Amino acid sequence: MIKTIGFDADDTLWHNENVFVATHARLCELLSGYHDATKVDDVLNTTERRNLARYGYGIKSFTLSAIETAIELSDAQVSANEIRRIIALAHDMLDHPVEILAGVPETVTALASDYLLIIITKGDLRDQSRKYELSKLDPHFAELEVVTEKDPATYERILQRHRIDPAEFLMVGNSIKSDILPVLDIGGHAAHVPYPHTWVLDQADREPAGPRYHALNGIADLPDLLRSLAD
Amino acid sequence: MIKTIGFDADDTLWHNENVFVATHARLCELLSGYHDATKVDDVLNTTERRNLARYGYGIKSFTLSAIETAIELSDAQVSANEIRRIIALAHDMLDHPVEILAGVPETVTALASDYLLIIITKGDLRDQSRKYELSKLDPHFAELEVVTEKDPATYERILQRHRIDPAEFLMVGNSIKSDILPVLDIGGHAAHVPYPHTWVLDQADREPAGPRYHALNGIADLPDLLRSLAD
Repeated sequence: MIKTIGFDADDTLWHNENVFVATHARLCELLSGYHDATKVDDVLNTTERRNLARYGYGIKSFTLSAIETAIELSDAQVSANEIRRIIALAHDMLDHPVEILAGVPETVTALASDYLLIIITKGDLRDQSRKYELSKLDPHFAELEVVTEKDPATYERILQRHRIDPAEFLMVGNSIKSDILPVLDIGGHAAHVPYPHTWVLDQADREPAGPRYHALNGIADLPDLLRSLAD
Repeated sequence: MIKTIGFDADDTLWHNENVFVATHARLCELLSGYHDATKVDDVLNTTERRNLARYGYGIKSFTLSAIETAIELSDAQVSANEIRRIIALAHDMLDHPVEILAGVPETVTALASDYLLIIITKGDLRDQSRKYELSKLDPHFAELEVVTEKDPATYERILQRHRIDPAEFLMVGNSIKSDILPVLDIGGHAAHVPYPHTWVLDQADREPAGPRYHALNGIADLPDLLRSLAD
């Protein structure tokens, strides 16, 4: 029944949000002379939200928003050396090794022989391409699709391009908002695999439901789900 | 003979480098208290070259490199307000209207009925998608391909995905390095349309040659070229 499986990448195939969480903490420490961590996080989230349409997703967008946040929170007193340290945080993130999540290599390898596998991820093209190459998972995937937004129209466009019937498509991911709801909306199947952190700008405003929604404990449960769907 | 035409976007379909040239001038003015324009441009180019593998192409990458340049050139004396003005330059670039080049709408419209047209462009996914939508050219194109690098392997991957024979493919663009040489290398046709400015990091180290290379005066010469290739 399912012929094609789409995988989200960040926090589904490899760790991502943990790097942002650690960097937020380092940024709060760096700006602790101006404001406490709660205030820094608040202004950073507000700045990122305001810049989202203009910057899009990814580390470079985060970094520009972090610099704006530092200038705002310090009443323009932040020093060039402090801004240099924010840029150094960005370099650390961009150079961070790719940490594959538990169960991923075995699951992807097992599924690749029976299904067409593609990655559908938001984010920065350069950074996602780097992580894809470093992941060593690329031989199992037919395509890396980096998109600006994961809405129903985006999924429809990708499925049409690959001539995939939504009823024969399963999307796997950790984000209810980005990986699950829009795919259910266009008639596809969606399997949720939880990740401990969800970015504040990626939180869903409703719960998924219906027979095409599948809540898993982890990615290793995928082969069983697919067998049950094929019955 | 030719069935598919690939178009570069920046400086082929719409203006781009003129915006960077103007922003360079504004940045040199902004930093003129620290160094003269030649020195600012030198350090900026060096910084962009050093950051290219880490940041990739686009306005956000340029902006982070410009901030690093300002910190370096001022011996870390640049003020938060000066850095705020650099970020404002970036916002101006990201919000800049899309200026279609002369001859483009007529040419693209005329070719769309007889050829499959795709856009193949480097750069930032978010920004290129925005310009594509604003251009109003999207109804004529089957695909927008934003890539991290325009090398022979990238062109081969795109052509394979669309099942395009290189001998039946023509790439059109202003950059000898990115649009012409790698396409000739994989057996495709390439038509050069000149643009007044070429970014220092996008200059070719050799001249194109051979029967599959076509030097045009402008994009409006494309229909005639295609007729001559079909004879």
